[in-house]
Amino acid sequence: MRAVVYRGPRHVELVARAAPRLQGPRDALVRVTRSAICGTDLHPYRGELAGFRPDTVLGHEFVGVVAETGSEVDLPLGTRVVASDVVACGRCASCARGWHYQCDQVGLFGYSDVVGRPLDGGQAELVRVPFADTVLSVCPDELSDEQMLFVGDVLSTGYAAAAATRITPGDVVGVVGAGPVGLLSALCLRLCGAALVVLADPEARRRTAARSLGLEATTPTELPAVLQAAAGGSGARAVVEAVGSAAALDCAIDAAGQHATVVVVGAPSTEPPPLAVQRAFANELTLRFVVGDPIRDGERVTALVRAGLLDPTVVVSHRLPLTDAVEAYQLFDRREAVKVIMVHED
Amino acid sequence: MRAVVYRGPRHVELVARAAPRLQGPRDALVRVTRSAICGTDLHPYRGELAGFRPDTVLGHEFVGVVAETGSEVDLPLGTRVVASDVVACGRCASCARGWHYQCDQVGLFGYSDVVGRPLDGGQAELVRVPFADTVLSVCPDELSDEQMLFVGDVLSTGYAAAAATRITPGDVVGVVGAGPVGLLSALCLRLCGAALVVLADPEARRRTAARSLGLEATTPTELPAVLQAAAGGSGARAVVEAVGSAAALDCAIDAAGQHATVVVVGAPSTEPPPLAVQRAFANELTLRFVVGDPIRDGERVTALVRAGLLDPTVVVSHRLPLTDAVEAYQLFDRREAVKVIMVHED
Amino acid sequence: MRAVVYRGPRHVELVARAAPRLQGPRDALVRVTRSAICGTDLHPYRGELAGFRPDTVLGHEFVGVVAETGSEVDLPLGTRVVASDVVACGRCASCARGWHYQCDQVGLFGYSDVVGRPLDGGQAELVRVPFADTVLSVCPDELSDEQMLFVGDVLSTGYAAAAATRITPGDVVGVVGAGPVGLLSALCLRLCGAALVVLADPEARRRTAARSLGLEATTPTELPAVLQAAAGGSGARAVVEAVGSAAALDCAIDAAGQHATVVVVGAPSTEPPPLAVQRAFANELTLRFVVGDPIRDGERVTALVRAGLLDPTVVVSHRLPLTDAVEAYQLFDRREAVKVIMVHED
Amino acid sequence: MRAVVYRGPRHVELVARAAPRLQGPRDALVRVTRSAICGTDLHPYRGELAGFRPDTVLGHEFVGVVAETGSEVDLPLGTRVVASDVVACGRCASCARGWHYQCDQVGLFGYSDVVGRPLDGGQAELVRVPFADTVLSVCPDELSDEQMLFVGDVLSTGYAAAAATRITPGDVVGVVGAGPVGLLSALCLRLCGAALVVLADPEARRRTAARSLGLEATTPTELPAVLQAAAGGSGARAVVEAVGSAAALDCAIDAAGQHATVVVVGAPSTEPPPLAVQRAFANELTLRFVVGDPIRDGERVTALVRAGLLDPTVVVSHRLPLTDAVEAYQLFDRREAVKVIMVHED
Repeated sequence: MRAVVYRGPRHVELVARAAPRLQGPRDALVRVTRSAICGTDLHPYRGELAGFRPDTVLGHEFVGVVAETGSEVDLPLGTRVVASDVVACGRCASCARGWHYQCDQVGLFGYSDVVGRPLDGGQAELVRVPFADTVLSVCPDELSDEQMLFVGDVLSTGYAAAAATRITPGDVVGVVGAGPVGLLSALCLRLCGAALVVLADPEARRRTAARSLGLEATTPTELPAVLQAAAGGSGARAVVEAVGSAAALDCAIDAAGQHATVVVVGAPSTEPPPLAVQRAFANELTLRFVVGDPIRDGERVTALVRAGLLDPTVVVSHRLPLTDAVEAYQLFDRREAVKVIMVHED
Repeated sequence: MRAVVYRGPRHVELVARAAPRLQGPRDALVRVTRSAICGTDLHPYRGELAGFRPDTVLGHEFVGVVAETGSEVDLPLGTRVVASDVVACGRCASCARGWHYQCDQVGLFGYSDVVGRPLDGGQAELVRVPFADTVLSVCPDELSDEQMLFVGDVLSTGYAAAAATRITPGDVVGVVGAGPVGLLSALCLRLCGAALVVLADPEARRRTAARSLGLEATTPTELPAVLQAAAGGSGARAVVEAVGSAAALDCAIDAAGQHATVVVVGAPSTEPPPLAVQRAFANELTLRFVVGDPIRDGERVTALVRAGLLDPTVVVSHRLPLTDAVEAYQLFDRREAVKVIMVHED
Repeated sequence: MRAVVYRGPRHVELVARAAPRLQGPRDALVRVTRSAICGTDLHPYRGELAGFRPDTVLGHEFVGVVAETGSEVDLPLGTRVVASDVVACGRCASCARGWHYQCDQVGLFGYSDVVGRPLDGGQAELVRVPFADTVLSVCPDELSDEQMLFVGDVLSTGYAAAAATRITPGDVVGVVGAGPVGLLSALCLRLCGAALVVLADPEARRRTAARSLGLEATTPTELPAVLQAAAGGSGARAVVEAVGSAAALDCAIDAAGQHATVVVVGAPSTEPPPLAVQRAFANELTLRFVVGDPIRDGERVTALVRAGLLDPTVVVSHRLPLTDAVEAYQLFDRREAVKVIMVHED
Repeated sequence: MRAVVYRGPRHVELVARAAPRLQGPRDALVRVTRSAICGTDLHPYRGELAGFRPDTVLGHEFVGVVAETGSEVDLPLGTRVVASDVVACGRCASCARGWHYQCDQVGLFGYSDVVGRPLDGGQAELVRVPFADTVLSVCPDELSDEQMLFVGDVLSTGYAAAAATRITPGDVVGVVGAGPVGLLSALCLRLCGAALVVLADPEARRRTAARSLGLEATTPTELPAVLQAAAGGSGARAVVEAVGSAAALDCAIDAAGQHATVVVVGAPSTEPPPLAVQRAFANELTLRFVVGDPIRDGERVTALVRAGLLDPTVVVSHRLPLTDAVEAYQLFDRREAVKVIMVHED
């Protein structure tokens, strides 16, 4: 089969590979119809993750149809499914608490062994899905593959970020970073009843894209003043940091109001950033470090897409065939694309 | 001045009365421009509240302009204001916890001494507002009197009911009763991200009105099955009881899913209803008895109206001049009106 | 083997029965060393549960050693274990949320088919435990069987009741009912930092027993005044209703302070009690209907017993050999015992 | 009157000063009987706060008797009172939310203008207390001045830290730093039902002191392993950082378990510390920056002291007359004292 593999910094290739096989009774094989490149994929692509294993099949955002199942997986062949990017057993003590990212056997598709066990990803014709009874969700008939694709990762991340703010309808909030996670966090915050969501991004093009989705946008420099003006005395109730940089963290802490929550959802791969403790104390802030959890939230997220309240496809800027995977990575790396979908088959 | 007063069961009159006077440094007088009749007003109107004092000026929903202020009230004359229906001092131990309905000096405009101290209401040309620094909110320029009118009561009640459900976006919820509180609770639940809100009302006319606002509606008998079908296995996450009857409470408890919250916001004036304890245990329910709190929530509610996310005027079915107050009460009592506004002056 | 079975109202017998057998790979057989009679057992004993099947082996509080295991149960034979009274699969959607009492395959040992599927209980030499990987907990070496016995039911119930109050250290709280659940709820509330816990019981003997454990005790009639005097202005923050009667519910609602939580943990088997809605609104109460969950809480409860912070054996008033089971039920039914333990073997 | 004033780095003096006067109707003068030196006082003492005004009277921990009151302060002369270290008006929008440290007119006794307005402190014979109706609490007759002294600061800080962990009884927790705030946080965590509280401090003397209070103690290096061993799989549920250094923050983040809460209560005066974001993500942590609030929590904290559940005087290592203030500061600065009380009069 064809698969997109990591060779080294800024070097991916579409190669021929032996198809994966079932390894246990809870495994399934999925024939992928659509995959996407996530901002998280840029960390290995850019060589920021030392030790990332060459020849790993990349990709943790994918949707497809069930092609083969182990004896304990109760999904008919041909069922349209989306996979959680995070793999969890569903049965250990951490899973029993609903903490799937803390699973004893956690893994992340296509991410080498950076998170748990090595596991090939979904930018391929076929992908093996462990704990398929827990990791796969069935796509409702009325939703397309592309509508469901992001439920498995970036939309559930935006949802988790918004939910973690614990805002009440009528609150004013900010989001630092107008990439896919930032945009989807902002759309989810509107669903939480935010009276105003302001996105901050240094790139004019991204601000324009945000505005085209009906969202307010400004620069990071301006964000604190814009939020303060809108929210009045006590300031913004929450700010989501959706970039993963020291500057973005500083901006989020600076823009947060009294007793506000800063949700950090952008995972940095670099040095520990300095923490503006004085400001955090002065405003008695709460910081939450949030990882999306499609196993926990997928059902609710899907319900929102079905109800027409959330359309994740608005973040898609490019669609390319799987055969153009190398170009797709280059586009995304150059920040020319908001979100790239790769079409495996139709 | 003219004022609508209670004479006895189903007997209100528009009478001439001496204008109220300031009684303390935190008082203000408000010249009322619009008032409304609340479902709660029907309890005294129908003679259900023994001991309700004749000659009480009725009405706790009103908006107007500041006409006179005590020495500690910092509001310029002519300022457009809406009053919280619940009067609270803002300084006692209960107020310090944000529990204004528990204030040592609580009162309810136009409600005799049923809640705290007797206090004349706002269905009059002028009304005295105690603790005006706390009880009055300034109307933003861009919002009309009618848009602000319900912030002081029924909209804040719907907001509090929705917030008390503590749902997460994507949840399925129900509302029992499609009167003004039920409708506004439903609209607020949509703002909380409900994937589906189903209203239940036995009257076809009210269900039609709900549907015209884009809400789903069904009968109370059907509600449990409709919610179960929509929510899948674990059922509805929350149900708001917005009627105040034994049947409505039973319906809400019956329709609530596993570990769900039933918010009781309809205040009955009658016998203690039987509580379906077996069902409440079987589903491990939480019941919350919620009173709206415009002092606490008014700012956020106003922000939502300003942002165009909430339009409380959709519940208005009739507008009459204050001089037709008697007819307005009769209309409302006969359930021919969803919500009646009385126009005092323009 | 010998087993205590239900024959009919106030008629139990110790009979010879075929030993249970494993029915599936997740089953285990446990040789019981100690069992106890729970207040819940009195509902069938007194004939209050129509349709309770004769010949059901009674008892959902038991501790013992693993005697045989199915292929998926990873517990060495001879391991000392305590079973959760509530049986749950640990894998369905409800279990994934941590709602074990809502499990698709829920059951209650020795409770006929009143809760889920019929399941023989633990007042026997041997008992079959379904989903043993989830339902059984290992007893730490340093804790005796009797110390662990109540982790499986009544202690976890008291813990859940206390936790559901969500009090903050320094709060004043009440408990209605000084039976085992009330006493253990009170001890757990002290662990939550309550500045004062007052138990209310109409029986002088039970009040004396409570006081001997260092707890305050009064009559239900006096409870509201005692709590108000101790708590000052805003009243008791929480009251646990640990009886399961209309009078106890009324007492709890009456004794609860402003914005307080009433935790209902006493399960009635009778008519729906009248609900004091007016009082619930006046104080803006929250009612929680709570079922203990040893699968969720057992680890923390055990940690407290190990740490010496909680001693559940203080509620034991009688110990009898299993051969005196009939007498044990009679004692408990006559309210002469607080808690009876049956000794199966040593 | 005599007062301890700041002259410059490591230079305080006991000087003669004009007694303070009432400046408004909500002011009171308090004749101080006991004061204490807080770790926070060492920041100016050590010259770490640029711009700290010379001649500021130091001290925000004090207890005394009411000597004079403004017209709106309803406290009889001679009443024993303790002051909140944080001064707040009790009436602004932030105070209405219960966020006293965010008050429009916030101040900190004896802390120059570092927090809000300059305000002389309580290490003096007399101190002026603004908003005395809100800032002062009456000491119950049965509690001594020393028992009440810390309610105004360090005990309420420990209480707030413990409450902010939101643990459930049976959880395992850690505290970094065995100074007064760390010790009192640990004692408050026991009141929250922690099955185990482990204090970490690099100084053997402090660990010994912690153990003498019945608390476990270890080194910061060992803390993660000790907590992990005690808590089992998911690790410590919460860690309190009670030092205010980069190393302490790192230790706390490192020692926190899955989905745990790190409460940061030690206020640093220095550079922003590096934040271990990777670890924070890996464990999906929450960080809360907490300031004690005696106005909010004083009543509950006092109730715990009255109930004998909490004895804050255990942290007192030295008592000196006010005339030895210079020596008291030196002792504390050299870390030879855990907590120093200055006796003003008896």
